[in-house]
Amino acid sequence: MIKKYIYGTPFDTEATVIDIEKTEGSPEYGNISCENKFCFEYEMSEKDMVFGLGESNRGINKRGYYYISNCTDDPQHTEHKSSFYGAHNFIVISGEKNFGIFIDYPSSICFDIGYTHSDKLSIICESCDLDFYVIYGESAYDIVKQFRKLIGRSYIPPKFAFGFAQSRWGYKTKEDYREVAREYRKHHIPIDMIYMDIDYMEDFKDFTFNKQNFSDFDEFVKEMKQYDYRLIPIIDAGVKIEKGYAIYEEGVENNYFCKKEDGTDFIAAVWPGYTHFPDVLNKEARKWFGSKYRILTEKGIEGFWNDMNEPAIFYTPEGIERIKNHMKKFVEKQPSKNDVWFMKDEMLYLANHSSDYASFYHNVDGQKIRHDKVHNLYGYNMTRAAAEGLNEIDSNRRYLLFSRSSYIGMHRYGGIWTGDNMSWWSHILLNIKMMPSLNMCGFLYIGADLGGFGGDTTRELLLRWLAFGIFTPIMRNHSADGTRRQECYQFEKVEELKQIIDVRYRLIPYIYSEYMKAALYDDMYFKPLAFVYAHDDIAKEIEDQLIIGNEVMIAPVYTQNAKGRSVYLPENMMMVKFLGDGSIQTEQYQKGYHYIAVALNEVVLFVREGKCIPVVDTAECVEKIDMQSMQLFGYQNSEYLLYDDDGITKQYTINCKLLKK
Amino acid sequence: MIKKYIYGTPFDTEATVIDIEKTEGSPEYGNISCENKFCFEYEMSEKDMVFGLGESNRGINKRGYYYISNCTDDPQHTEHKSSFYGAHNFIVISGEKNFGIFIDYPSSICFDIGYTHSDKLSIICESCDLDFYVIYGESAYDIVKQFRKLIGRSYIPPKFAFGFAQSRWGYKTKEDYREVAREYRKHHIPIDMIYMDIDYMEDFKDFTFNKQNFSDFDEFVKEMKQYDYRLIPIIDAGVKIEKGYAIYEEGVENNYFCKKEDGTDFIAAVWPGYTHFPDVLNKEARKWFGSKYRILTEKGIEGFWNDMNEPAIFYTPEGIERIKNHMKKFVEKQPSKNDVWFMKDEMLYLANHSSDYASFYHNVDGQKIRHDKVHNLYGYNMTRAAAEGLNEIDSNRRYLLFSRSSYIGMHRYGGIWTGDNMSWWSHILLNIKMMPSLNMCGFLYIGADLGGFGGDTTRELLLRWLAFGIFTPIMRNHSADGTRRQECYQFEKVEELKQIIDVRYRLIPYIYSEYMKAALYDDMYFKPLAFVYAHDDIAKEIEDQLIIGNEVMIAPVYTQNAKGRSVYLPENMMMVKFLGDGSIQTEQYQKGYHYIAVALNEVVLFVREGKCIPVVDTAECVEKIDMQSMQLFGYQNSEYLLYDDDGITKQYTINCKLLKK
Repeated sequence: MIKKYIYGTPFDTEATVIDIEKTEGSPEYGNISCENKFCFEYEMSEKDMVFGLGESNRGINKRGYYYISNCTDDPQHTEHKSSFYGAHNFIVISGEKNFGIFIDYPSSICFDIGYTHSDKLSIICESCDLDFYVIYGESAYDIVKQFRKLIGRSYIPPKFAFGFAQSRWGYKTKEDYREVAREYRKHHIPIDMIYMDIDYMEDFKDFTFNKQNFSDFDEFVKEMKQYDYRLIPIIDAGVKIEKGYAIYEEGVENNYFCKKEDGTDFIAAVWPGYTHFPDVLNKEARKWFGSKYRILTEKGIEGFWNDMNEPAIFYTPEGIERIKNHMKKFVEKQPSKNDVWFMKDEMLYLANHSSDYASFYHNVDGQKIRHDKVHNLYGYNMTRAAAEGLNEIDSNRRYLLFSRSSYIGMHRYGGIWTGDNMSWWSHILLNIKMMPSLNMCGFLYIGADLGGFGGDTTRELLLRWLAFGIFTPIMRNHSADGTRRQECYQFEKVEELKQIIDVRYRLIPYIYSEYMKAALYDDMYFKPLAFVYAHDDIAKEIEDQLIIGNEVMIAPVYTQNAKGRSVYLPENMMMVKFLGDGSIQTEQYQKGYHYIAVALNEVVLFVREGKCIPVVDTAECVEKIDMQSMQLFGYQNSEYLLYDDDGITKQYTINCKLLKK
Repeated sequence: MIKKYIYGTPFDTEATVIDIEKTEGSPEYGNISCENKFCFEYEMSEKDMVFGLGESNRGINKRGYYYISNCTDDPQHTEHKSSFYGAHNFIVISGEKNFGIFIDYPSSICFDIGYTHSDKLSIICESCDLDFYVIYGESAYDIVKQFRKLIGRSYIPPKFAFGFAQSRWGYKTKEDYREVAREYRKHHIPIDMIYMDIDYMEDFKDFTFNKQNFSDFDEFVKEMKQYDYRLIPIIDAGVKIEKGYAIYEEGVENNYFCKKEDGTDFIAAVWPGYTHFPDVLNKEARKWFGSKYRILTEKGIEGFWNDMNEPAIFYTPEGIERIKNHMKKFVEKQPSKNDVWFMKDEMLYLANHSSDYASFYHNVDGQKIRHDKVHNLYGYNMTRAAAEGLNEIDSNRRYLLFSRSSYIGMHRYGGIWTGDNMSWWSHILLNIKMMPSLNMCGFLYIGADLGGFGGDTTRELLLRWLAFGIFTPIMRNHSADGTRRQECYQFEKVEELKQIIDVRYRLIPYIYSEYMKAALYDDMYFKPLAFVYAHDDIAKEIEDQLIIGNEVMIAPVYTQNAKGRSVYLPENMMMVKFLGDGSIQTEQYQKGYHYIAVALNEVVLFVREGKCIPVVDTAECVEKIDMQSMQLFGYQNSEYLLYDDDGITKQYTINCKLLKK
C-alpha cells in the first residue's frame, strides 16, 4: 500500500508513473514539520536497518551517516563524502516497523540516518514543496517491489550491451581504437564495444567529429563493425559557444539554453571551454537536443553515454572575475598563511560553485525556475532527451544509453555508471554495495569503471574487479588520461584476464535472463542477503556478498594478496568454480562459514539449494554465443526458466523456456 | 646472520647500533646495479610474502603496490598514496627464500613490490651511496628479531603513557582543558593525559606560552596534576622569525638554523608564519634545541609530541614570488581551462614543494649537505634532540615522547603516532595493519588518532576505534579544529564509551608487561598471524586480526552497523568478552571460523590455547590501578609471567612474577 502526502506546491518531476490520490493528514510513523524547512523525523529502534538511496556512499545498510542528494561531479569518493552524481531519494526502514519513504523533491535533501543521534532518522529539505510517499509492506523487499511499480519499468538495453567493453579517456586517433580492437581479438578476449571519450569530437563539440581523425566517421563505424565492435560515443551536457557551430547557433536562436536572471544565456566552462547548457527541462529544448543524437545514429552508432550532466561546471566568467580580484589583492601584499589558504580554496571551489548553480534558470512550461531548485533533474532530463530522440528514430528499437547524473524516473530512460571512481580496492567494495541500492531505486543497467578510473591500477586489482564486474550489467574497463594503461592486454599473462572475461560470456544467457526478468517484473537483479535471508542474523549484516537474480550468490574477492576469502553460506549451496583452463568444478557446501580459494584467473559463484543455472561456451562477442552449447550447473532435478528474445527490438514477449537438469 | 654491503659513501644515519663488517661482493639473492641510480631487483616466487616498511600504506603483506620512503605531510591517506610521514626501509621476503633487507639511505627510495610486474621486487634510490644489509633467518619473525637487535632497543615510555588521552586541535583556554578534565572525571571515564595542540603557545612559538591564557603555565600544570591529569604539549619544527624571541635570536646568532645556498637562514612558512628550521643534523644545534625542552619540564611537563617535522612546509618566500608572477599573468588574460588548472595546481603544490627541499642545507660536522639528500632524517633528529635534552635533565627518568616524522634509529628515542588520519572506517583497518609493520621496524610506542583526526566522526566509529585502540600503546582520541567534537562525553550513552575505556585500564598490567618484554627482548608487541601461524595458509593471509604480546589474539570490528564479525581461530582459543556491566564472559572455541557478536560497548579478545592473562579492576588513572584486584582469565593450569616496574625510572630490573591459574 502506498500513501501520498503533498506539501506545498511540488515541482512535477515525472518520477512516478502511477497516479496516487493524495492522503490527508500526517503519515503514521514519524513527525513532519513544515516551518521554513521540511523536516521528517523518526525514532529508529536498535534493530532497524535502513536501505536505499541508490548511488550513495557507505553501506547497503545506510545507518550511521548522512547523505545529501545533490548531484555532484566530485571524483574523490572517500568515506566522508555525502554527495555523488545521482539523487535517489528512496529509503526503506526495516525492523520494528517496515515502511518505505520516497521524497519526490528535485533540490538538495539531507538524510541524516543516525549520524547526529544514533537512533534518529531525519530528512531535511530547504523548501516545503514536495510529494512524500509512504510505502507499507511486509518486508523491505516487498516495499521495494511496490515502489518499483510506482516508478515504472526500468530501461532495457540491447543484448549486445551485456558484452564487455573497453574505454579510456585519451584515445584520440583511429589507430588508438584499432589497436584496442586488434589486441583484444589477438588475445581472444571477448569484447563487444569500445567507448569513445571526449576526444572523438571536434574541440569537444557535441555531435561533431574530429576533423583530423574522424572526418569519415561512418566509414570507421563500419570498419569496427566488421570486427564485431560497436563504438559507443560520449555526449556532454555543455554546448560550446562558437559562431558557426550549428548546435550553438540553433540553441541561441530558439532560446533552448539555460538563461541568467537578465535573460542572457548562462555561460559555464567545461571541456570545450565556455559553453551553454541546453535547457532540458524545457520540453521543446529537450526535443531539440534529443533529435541531435540522430546525427550519430545515422552514422551507424547504436548507443551513447551522457556525461558531465550534473551539470558539472569547471568555472564561470563570474568565478574568473572573482578570482582575478582576489589575485590582484594577493599580489599587492605580503600574504599571510590565511591569505594563501584562502586563495587555494578559492581556486579549488571555482568548480561546481553553489553560487553558479543559483545563477541560471530553466523555462518550464513558461515558468522561470532557478536551477538550484531543480538541480537534481538535469542529468535525468538530458538522458530523457536522448531516449526520446532515439525513440523518434525507431520506437521499436533498443539503444544502449546511460548517464552519469540521474534522479529516480531516469531509470526508465537509461542506465547509469557510477562515475569517476579510483583504482582502489575499497572501490570494489563500494561498487558491490552500491549495486543493490541502485536496483531498489529502479536503476538496473548499472556498473562501475572496472579497474578504477582515476589513479594507477594494478594487474591484481583489475583481475579481481573484473571478476566482480562479470556480474554487473555494465561491464566496462575505463580509465583516465594520465593514469597507467589498463586495457587487459597491458599486463603479464594476458590469458588470465581472458579467462576471467570468458566467464562473463559463458554466463550471458543467465545474466540477460535474470536482468530481463527483473526489468519486466519490476524486481531486483542484485539483492542484498538481508532481502533473501531476512531471518538469518548473520546474513542480514553481510554486505560483501550479493544475490544475483534468483539462483546465484556471489562473494567477490576484494583484498590485495588474497588467495581466497571466507564466505558465509546462509543455506546449503553448490559452489561453481570456473577454472582458468575453461573447466568447471562444482562442490556442495553446507550452510555456514567456509574458506574458498579463488585464484586470480578463477571465478566462483554459489548456486542456491535446489537450483541450477545455464552456462554456455565462451564467444568473442555476444552475437556469436552458441546457445546450443548450453549446459546446466547446479542441483540435480532442478529447473531454470530461461528468458531470451531478439535482443534488439522492444518485443519483450514472455518467451521463457523451462530447462531441466 | 647479517651481511652488510657498502655502496659509495653512505651518510652515517646512526640507524644501527652494532658494527657489522663489510661483506665484499654481491648479495646472494637478487641483482644490484649501481649506474647513476642504485637498483636492487629480485624475482619473487608466487608464494613469497613481503613484510615491513613500517608506517606505509596498504597491507601487512606489502606485495602488489609501490611505496616511496619520503617523509611527507599529506593528511589524505587514500589507497594510492605512496608516502606517509615516516621512512622505514626494512623489508622481509618470506616464502621460497627468507631474507630481510635494510637500506640505510636517508633520501627518497622507491620499493616497487610487484606493482610494475607482479613478480618483480625492485628497490631504487637516486644515488648509490648507501649501506645495504641482508639478514638471513629461518623465518620472517626470526629475521625481524635479528634486525631489531641490529638497530637497538626501542624507546620505553613511562607507565602513565599507557593511559588514555584526550586531545584536540582547537583547545585554547584553560577552561577548554578544564572542561575536558571535568567531563571525563564526571563520567568516570579513565584518563591520564590531555594533549596540548599548537594553541597553548604564544603565536605558535616553540617553548613559549600564550600570554593571555597560560601566563602561569606551571600553576596550571599543577592544577591538572591534582586531578591526575598530565598535560602533554606539542613542539613544532619551525622556529618563528621574530625579533626579541630568544630561541630565534640564539639560533640566528649561533648558526643553528638550516641555511640556503647563499649562507642565509632558510625561510619556510608553517603555523607561526615564516620560520627557520633548527639544523638538528648539526650536533651543536641539536644539543641546543634539545636543551630547550627543559623550559617546559621545569614547569612540570613530563612528555611531548614533536610535530611538523618532515619538515612540513606550507610555502616559502620563493614559492610566493613564483605564484605572484603566475597570478600577474593570469589576471591579464582570458584564461583557458588549462590556465585555471595550472593555477589550481600551483596553489596546491605551494606546500611541501620539492624545489624547496632542494634549496636548503645542513651543517654536518662542517660538511654542507643539501636537505633533500638527507630529508628522511629530520624528524628522527628533532626527536633525538628532545630525547638527548631530556636525558640531560635526568638520565634515569623516562619521558613520554613521540614524533610524527621518523626514520629507523628514531625508534630508540621515541614513539610515533601515525599522523593526520581521517574519520574513516577504512582507517581503523589501516591502523590495524600498520601496527605490526611498525614493530618490525623498531617502533613499539605507537598508535593512531582514535576516532579520526580529519573529517567528522560518528559515535559508532569512535566506539569501534577505541575498542581497537585499547590494544595500541598510544591510546589517544584526537581530532582537528573544525570537525565534529569527538571527546567521549559528546555522545549519547556516554557510559558505553566509558565501558570500552574501562577495559583498557583493566588490561594495562598485561599491555605494559607485554610491551616491556617486547622492548627489552627486541621483540614484537603486535604480530601478524603469519608470524605465529606460519604454516596455516588461511591465517597467513589474515590482516584484520592481530596477535598482541604472546597470549592474545584480537579481531576488531571495523565496519559500520556490524553487530559482530566472523573470526578465524588458527587454534583452539578462549574468548574473553568484557561486557558493558563490567562482567567478563569466557567461552572456549574450536579452531576455525566463528561469528562472534560484539556489542558497541563490549571488547572481545581471544586467549591462545594453554595461556592466561591478568585482568585488574578499572581505575580512573594508571597510578590508581589496584594490582591486588588482579585475576587471571584463560585456560586452567596456565601460567603468566608478569613484568612490572616503577614505571618511571630506567631501572628495568627483570623483575617478573610467575602467576598461576
